[in-house]
Amino acid sequence: MSLDQPHDLPPLSIAIVPDSFKGSAGAGAVARSMARGASAAAAAAGREVLISTLPFADGGEGTLDAVLDAWDMTAHSVPTTDALGRPITARFGFSPDGATAIIEAAEANGLPAVSDVPLQPLEATTFGIGALITAALNAGATEIVLCIGGSATTDGGTGLLRALGARFLDVDGHELPAGGGSLEKLDSINIAGVDPRARAVSWKIACDVTNPLVGERGAAAVFGPQKGASETDVDVLDVGLRRLATVISDLTGRQLDEVPGMGAAGGLPASLAGFCEVELVPGWELVAQILNARDILGNADLVLTGEGRLDSQSLNGKVVNGVRLASRPESDVIVIAGSVQLSPEELSGAGILAAYSIAQGPATLAELSEETEELIARTSYSVVRTYLANR
Amino acid sequence: MSLDQPHDLPPLSIAIVPDSFKGSAGAGAVARSMARGASAAAAAAGREVLISTLPFADGGEGTLDAVLDAWDMTAHSVPTTDALGRPITARFGFSPDGATAIIEAAEANGLPAVSDVPLQPLEATTFGIGALITAALNAGATEIVLCIGGSATTDGGTGLLRALGARFLDVDGHELPAGGGSLEKLDSINIAGVDPRARAVSWKIACDVTNPLVGERGAAAVFGPQKGASETDVDVLDVGLRRLATVISDLTGRQLDEVPGMGAAGGLPASLAGFCEVELVPGWELVAQILNARDILGNADLVLTGEGRLDSQSLNGKVVNGVRLASRPESDVIVIAGSVQLSPEELSGAGILAAYSIAQGPATLAELSEETEELIARTSYSVVRTYLANR
Repeated sequence: MSLDQPHDLPPLSIAIVPDSFKGSAGAGAVARSMARGASAAAAAAGREVLISTLPFADGGEGTLDAVLDAWDMTAHSVPTTDALGRPITARFGFSPDGATAIIEAAEANGLPAVSDVPLQPLEATTFGIGALITAALNAGATEIVLCIGGSATTDGGTGLLRALGARFLDVDGHELPAGGGSLEKLDSINIAGVDPRARAVSWKIACDVTNPLVGERGAAAVFGPQKGASETDVDVLDVGLRRLATVISDLTGRQLDEVPGMGAAGGLPASLAGFCEVELVPGWELVAQILNARDILGNADLVLTGEGRLDSQSLNGKVVNGVRLASRPESDVIVIAGSVQLSPEELSGAGILAAYSIAQGPATLAELSEETEELIARTSYSVVRTYLANR
Repeated sequence: MSLDQPHDLPPLSIAIVPDSFKGSAGAGAVARSMARGASAAAAAAGREVLISTLPFADGGEGTLDAVLDAWDMTAHSVPTTDALGRPITARFGFSPDGATAIIEAAEANGLPAVSDVPLQPLEATTFGIGALITAALNAGATEIVLCIGGSATTDGGTGLLRALGARFLDVDGHELPAGGGSLEKLDSINIAGVDPRARAVSWKIACDVTNPLVGERGAAAVFGPQKGASETDVDVLDVGLRRLATVISDLTGRQLDEVPGMGAAGGLPASLAGFCEVELVPGWELVAQILNARDILGNADLVLTGEGRLDSQSLNGKVVNGVRLASRPESDVIVIAGSVQLSPEELSGAGILAAYSIAQGPATLAELSEETEELIARTSYSVVRTYLANR
């Protein structure tokens, strides 16, 4: 309590740039709760502060929602099919100027959506993503941002390109069945029918892994098993993806098999990269670009970020790491999380000033989830009050 | 992370003045954990800070340990008896200069120690406290600080004074049986045998209640039931305490029955106050006096305090409240607790800058208790790091 609070200090700038608390609160709700606590703290301190909020994401699950929240836009819905070809409705979004479309591929090829039946790693297809892309192109998008995590597929993105008009043929000129399991029989790709807008548009793919398309660190070997692939399936899929790379190389001269990141999401980037101009960007960086995060972070004295669980993974490609990297070195970055699993040494090493759990005492995960927004607001109050003390 | 950390700032002064986390860590251990976190934060910030620690207490359970820890003294042990007259060993302490003795009365008349058998509200006696007092007088104490919470007794302190040499007699001149149940038959008090040093010493009693000795708000009516007194017992005890006040008044002219605080701990202060010079002081204030807490608090920019559970009770006579009251208005007081149950509005209203739980995520009370010291250190790190940002 400062009775002699100085009143001539410049307003302090606070940027609030959190991830979602998965399963408890979306990034938009988290940001609003943090802002509520920070505002109350500033009022209690009698200090003028400038608070900017930007719901953030790392290119993984929840990115579409966070970006739509930040854009203050609502999702568009399109009828399409899931990774097993069953009818679903999937969502995508547009930037306020209509130029950028954002697609979370897992809306159409996600693993959870097909976990109600035995996994079919050889048949699972990215075909359903095509309808989202076509809808975005129809609406005039000139840039498509594709977030590709959480997939059930290992088809090298062939389904997606097929939905846009390509034909994947065997030696007899017959169309191959859907899925990566048939790619070992791939002989040629006919792209004559591919929507020309798909080749003109600017593609950006959020990609946080460096795995190549094939081999020991490839899509089939590393990510296949979690999608249900047996050892034999992995071999079949790896041979198929290798065949895909060879056919693309023969057709276009593009060598994709060793490119870092082509192995992400079952090789999803490969088919697109074979025939279109595609940029692979770390997820947080891509989100930072499309949301102009550096505009907000560049002026911040204090950056509040957060996520459900702050642990060593958070320091590697997640929102917290991205926010730290996108912030000025002289900004103070404080994390508010459901659970904090880093030591002071680890925080300091990661350039994080301090980290706080929203727990106010003994509590179960369910109890914290029930009250997440109020607990975030309370924690943010104390944190910002402490930060502002005597400023 | 401040790259342009100013290096010409005066050292910041941090006073660490916590209560114990009951059942998990004593006040001394809490203070050392807070200091560890604060030191690490200062080192990470590259800031020079002056850290003073003072384990604190509110006059209740744990006060003896906290004061001994602050004094860096060990306890003395004396053979005596519990509230039911059974042999025990009880502890008390001396200040480094030997002038002040501190006695936690519950060491000899505490309720938990006699909960192994059916409660005996009419017979329970303060007699065992006398041995502690005698030992303190024998060692040369000139001031005795008596903390009186948690008692099993409602004897008006008669047992204690009897142990010092007084005789409580019925109309036939026979000594009354021990306990408050016999006081209705009190006819006279013979103080000829009372240790003269007990009347010369300076008495200070830590007392946080304002209940009078007798009546609806008196010792028997309000505190009797929790010590096992039935409705009939309460009437008997109230009549007995009223009789005690009358006999004292007849003998000395001192009117004790309506004095606020005389009803504390089963009327324990009454017998002493009848024949000695006794000062009743709020527990935290008494601890603050004997530990010279204002010397440390008077220079602090930041005061870190804490307790097991911060709730509305904490704002009323507990350590946190006392620390706030004993601190300068311009000091920032931050609370670190096992559990925080106050809203931002309540914190602000109580003059507390901010409050943090040591929980780092979902956890049971047992899990928090197991790791209390490490969790306190981690929380203190983030809090002090946040407080020091850009200073």
